[in-house]
Amino acid sequence: MADNLRVAVIGAGRMGADHIQRLHTRIHGAEVAAVVDIDLERAQAAVAHIPGARAFATAAEAYATSVENGDVNAVLIATPGFLHEQALLEALPLDIPILCEKPLTPDADSAWKIVEAEVAMGRKRIQVGFMRRFDAEYAQLGGLIRSGELGELLMLHCRHRNPDTPAGFTNEMLINDSVVHEFDVIRYLTGEEITSVQVRLGKASSKAPNGQHDPQHVLIETSTGVLADVEIFVNAQFGYEVATQAAFEDGIVDIGGDGGPYLRRAGRWGGTVTPGFEARFGAAYDAEIQSWVDAALRGEIGGPSAWDGYATAACCEAGVEAQKSGEKVAVVLRERPALYGEGAP
Amino acid sequence: MADNLRVAVIGAGRMGADHIQRLHTRIHGAEVAAVVDIDLERAQAAVAHIPGARAFATAAEAYATSVENGDVNAVLIATPGFLHEQALLEALPLDIPILCEKPLTPDADSAWKIVEAEVAMGRKRIQVGFMRRFDAEYAQLGGLIRSGELGELLMLHCRHRNPDTPAGFTNEMLINDSVVHEFDVIRYLTGEEITSVQVRLGKASSKAPNGQHDPQHVLIETSTGVLADVEIFVNAQFGYEVATQAAFEDGIVDIGGDGGPYLRRAGRWGGTVTPGFEARFGAAYDAEIQSWVDAALRGEIGGPSAWDGYATAACCEAGVEAQKSGEKVAVVLRERPALYGEGAP
Amino acid sequence: MADNLRVAVIGAGRMGADHIQRLHTRIHGAEVAAVVDIDLERAQAAVAHIPGARAFATAAEAYATSVENGDVNAVLIATPGFLHEQALLEALPLDIPILCEKPLTPDADSAWKIVEAEVAMGRKRIQVGFMRRFDAEYAQLGGLIRSGELGELLMLHCRHRNPDTPAGFTNEMLINDSVVHEFDVIRYLTGEEITSVQVRLGKASSKAPNGQHDPQHVLIETSTGVLADVEIFVNAQFGYEVATQAAFEDGIVDIGGDGGPYLRRAGRWGGTVTPGFEARFGAAYDAEIQSWVDAALRGEIGGPSAWDGYATAACCEAGVEAQKSGEKVAVVLRERPALYGEGAP
Amino acid sequence: MADNLRVAVIGAGRMGADHIQRLHTRIHGAEVAAVVDIDLERAQAAVAHIPGARAFATAAEAYATSVENGDVNAVLIATPGFLHEQALLEALPLDIPILCEKPLTPDADSAWKIVEAEVAMGRKRIQVGFMRRFDAEYAQLGGLIRSGELGELLMLHCRHRNPDTPAGFTNEMLINDSVVHEFDVIRYLTGEEITSVQVRLGKASSKAPNGQHDPQHVLIETSTGVLADVEIFVNAQFGYEVATQAAFEDGIVDIGGDGGPYLRRAGRWGGTVTPGFEARFGAAYDAEIQSWVDAALRGEIGGPSAWDGYATAACCEAGVEAQKSGEKVAVVLRERPALYGEGAP
Repeated sequence: MADNLRVAVIGAGRMGADHIQRLHTRIHGAEVAAVVDIDLERAQAAVAHIPGARAFATAAEAYATSVENGDVNAVLIATPGFLHEQALLEALPLDIPILCEKPLTPDADSAWKIVEAEVAMGRKRIQVGFMRRFDAEYAQLGGLIRSGELGELLMLHCRHRNPDTPAGFTNEMLINDSVVHEFDVIRYLTGEEITSVQVRLGKASSKAPNGQHDPQHVLIETSTGVLADVEIFVNAQFGYEVATQAAFEDGIVDIGGDGGPYLRRAGRWGGTVTPGFEARFGAAYDAEIQSWVDAALRGEIGGPSAWDGYATAACCEAGVEAQKSGEKVAVVLRERPALYGEGAP
Repeated sequence: MADNLRVAVIGAGRMGADHIQRLHTRIHGAEVAAVVDIDLERAQAAVAHIPGARAFATAAEAYATSVENGDVNAVLIATPGFLHEQALLEALPLDIPILCEKPLTPDADSAWKIVEAEVAMGRKRIQVGFMRRFDAEYAQLGGLIRSGELGELLMLHCRHRNPDTPAGFTNEMLINDSVVHEFDVIRYLTGEEITSVQVRLGKASSKAPNGQHDPQHVLIETSTGVLADVEIFVNAQFGYEVATQAAFEDGIVDIGGDGGPYLRRAGRWGGTVTPGFEARFGAAYDAEIQSWVDAALRGEIGGPSAWDGYATAACCEAGVEAQKSGEKVAVVLRERPALYGEGAP
Repeated sequence: MADNLRVAVIGAGRMGADHIQRLHTRIHGAEVAAVVDIDLERAQAAVAHIPGARAFATAAEAYATSVENGDVNAVLIATPGFLHEQALLEALPLDIPILCEKPLTPDADSAWKIVEAEVAMGRKRIQVGFMRRFDAEYAQLGGLIRSGELGELLMLHCRHRNPDTPAGFTNEMLINDSVVHEFDVIRYLTGEEITSVQVRLGKASSKAPNGQHDPQHVLIETSTGVLADVEIFVNAQFGYEVATQAAFEDGIVDIGGDGGPYLRRAGRWGGTVTPGFEARFGAAYDAEIQSWVDAALRGEIGGPSAWDGYATAACCEAGVEAQKSGEKVAVVLRERPALYGEGAP
Repeated sequence: MADNLRVAVIGAGRMGADHIQRLHTRIHGAEVAAVVDIDLERAQAAVAHIPGARAFATAAEAYATSVENGDVNAVLIATPGFLHEQALLEALPLDIPILCEKPLTPDADSAWKIVEAEVAMGRKRIQVGFMRRFDAEYAQLGGLIRSGELGELLMLHCRHRNPDTPAGFTNEMLINDSVVHEFDVIRYLTGEEITSVQVRLGKASSKAPNGQHDPQHVLIETSTGVLADVEIFVNAQFGYEVATQAAFEDGIVDIGGDGGPYLRRAGRWGGTVTPGFEARFGAAYDAEIQSWVDAALRGEIGGPSAWDGYATAACCEAGVEAQKSGEKVAVVLRERPALYGEGAP
């Protein structure tokens, strides 16, 4: 295994702080080495609880200090989108891995400049933060499309609903910040580029702030004629929902609802059955071990105790006896030692 | 933050191997320091790809070599259940954190010995592997019970179904290996000890191997009279299912089906709405960053490229124009540089 | 086709009034000829709006007056259960079809007397009101069991929940009035007689009235060892629910939830797809025609008007034009004639 | 109550035969008096099993013979759509109730002629067969819209999918025969007229017959700007589906799926709980009584017998005893009389 990735996070706002926390507590094989924010105090606050991480007001300083000596060997860009172009052009010459939050840049011309710069380097260094490609359901739908099992994909009906929007969210941001995800995921699912976009503005919600016409209905075509439509509704009040319904020649699939991909094909509707405990409880196992590790590092126990082990062993004994006798068998426990406290097991 | 947890894993069979992989690739703050297996070759194979980890044939050797010098500071026991008592009695004197796979030991007397030993030490060191307590839905049901929001909990109807059983799975193991989880989780959910167990044997499936009477219906009571029943059906063919229906004074809740906790109360059925993108896509963000880190450590890109960023920027531009004009706007892309390959976006 | 059935309804209470309404307005081929109630005014009120129907205080009078001359040729018994024995013994000698609400009689001895009386006649004349056998989902589950498609049926988990109970509902009535339906439906589904019954009384709901221990857990066995259990919970507050989960050798089926029978078998969960419009909209067609008939008999129109026909024809014209042109096509309607009123289409 | 409606059915093809069966066996208060079909043998076959009904080759003959003397007092038109105009103009002067299958006529000009003719009469006599208005879920959605409970309705996403199409189904018929229902139901739900229609033709299914471009995406606007879109897909293979998702200011509602209207609003998703047995089993009660009536008219029993009543009474006795004792109580039945046959209860 290579050494850990030592990441400089550029931008310590909402998304930046989230990624710092993620790298510091959940991601295996990486650590936060530097945090850059024009607001130096915000950068300092972000690194305060991370041993060895340093705060900087500019990326240039961070790179000057840390890249050459290997203290930093990767960059994660989480500034507002309009600052991405500059951040990318500063980071690319370092020739280290870059994860750039979406959008790459806010418009096609500046994005193309980044593409040209990377092509000039001759090596792919930039990953863009379209995280839906890592969502299990989108991945399953993508696999189903590529398998051809339901024939050709014909239409995609997408819904993108937020309860409300932060202050300053403009009408253009419905497209640039929200529908941008649909653009990428339609490209990802179909494996085709998008060839046209149309927007229908109808009745607007009275819950939308001034300047936003919300919802909108976005009509999209891909190169082979797959028709997609997106209801973008960013003041939908009720909650958050990102869902897609795919119409194939031989069936219909829904993702983003409850219960995993939901398919209708000849004669039946439904989804797939969980095949074994790994699929059902894999995340619980991870959580269990992580909880034990975290508690152990604090000198504590993070879950069921030996008392719990004893009490269930007594239940099992009674159960096996009951299995044999057909009678109700009492479970009698010894007195609970004070070590295990009182109250709930 | 303390140093990493350096874990000796005792037993490199199915569960042991699974935990080794988990500690090595997903758990933050821990590493595999030693693997013990009576089959030394299996232990050696398990550590072959883990720099710094050592293989031993006995726990005694591992502890003698590694604990004093700090190479090992935690133990995870994943041997078969009948070996747990010895493994626990060996590990307890080390006074380091122990995670012991369920069951603690196979019977109440031996389990009590462990409790006594831990009480004698005066410090809780053992966590038992009842991982359902870390499952999000059990946790939500537990929270709902404790909240009192639906009145008192009255009955629990549990289903525990496996497609089939490994060779050598005996009739007693239906209780000791499978229902044991229900025993713990009923204790966990109710916060009460179990007071009686009864087993009904009815019509048996022809799919069960010789010696197993499968399914069985296990009737359980807790100290305040909560009635639970468990259908344990370990050759259920169709798939894996662990589900519980809880009847409260004021409503009914199902977990373990599709779509998260499902509740019926006065006038409505349903579940909770996802409040925001963090809840919906948190796991995708983790997967995205982990994919980037893993690929970066291999010198690669693990997700959407700058080309994807460019192409979606062009879509956004067209979208904003379409938003203003109401017309269909073509999306025209430059030629795709060879760096980004061909085929699917 | 034979003449209409001319029914004497015995008992004009809640169920009786319901059946009178059903026979009078929805059932094809039958009419209410007589209503008998010990409270003659209640009987008279029940027939007030039914031309040709007569009211009586006793069944004897009704039969004496009406059966011989053919005014009555069928009997529907809807009195309280304790009066069924007498009502049946009075009606049986008439040798005409009898529908008796469940229970046949409240205990086995009196029920056996009825059986003996009918056997003595040598002709089956009595149908008992176990209406669940006519529920589409129970019928589907029964068909699935008999088909053997999922192997042998092994267990049935039944839930019978009411929001609350009417005054005077005793603890015995949980069995005699509610679980009685489960008894019949378990017999109907398995095609076997029941061989034992056990009742578990655990924690009781504080919402149950004095004298009722609610909920209860009823354990049932059939002649081949199928194990059934019933949660009977008649003060469940949240709503009404009658549901059954059937565990087969090769799959699990749920009925009584939402969405029709729900099945889990190897690799998939789900239900059946609606094959065509008849299945989806059959009931709507019936409702439409019935609405038209009912309105026509009042001299009115009961649904969409010629204006609605005209307006949709204009939409279709625009649609076909839009289909050809790819352009948005305006739909322009003439002024709406006053005949069709204003407001909603 | 008025006399029965005595209906002349014009057209004995697929829909006509269906309506004849409906009127003859399920609709209360109506009977089939005459059937008209240009293919006289088809008309004769349709009335063969209906006492008193007569067959004619032309509506004129039917009316001349039967209307004046009162044998016919209502008309149901079920001929192909292109014959509706003539059939309506013939029937209108009779001044009796007319139910005309959709479409009223195939184009706006001819439909307007019908409107003018009816207006000239000064009395509404025509109901058009838009049966979706009688579907329980559309009615519930309509009620929800009018209630204002979820704020203003903003968008409607409609799906109309058939497994395949009969021979001769043209590209125009996607609009005229299928989308016509959506046109009416959008008008019905919104209470507004439609102001524009647009059709998107994208990738076509290889399963569509020559001459059909299938699926199509139809974009619709109403007078206040509600945006609707319809996926019309008439060779969708998997099954039949007519579903609508409504986006309101304060929530999202789905109908036409499984489980009744499904709503998402602040904090929760779900539907309404069944309040009592009438809602759950009303249709079963109807089916039960109808089965009894139908069997009785044939001199038979159509459901559970006295034996079933006896056997369940024995179960109840055992149940009440078990309720008191807490023990398992055997159910012992007498020998089953031959009258009740053998096999399944």
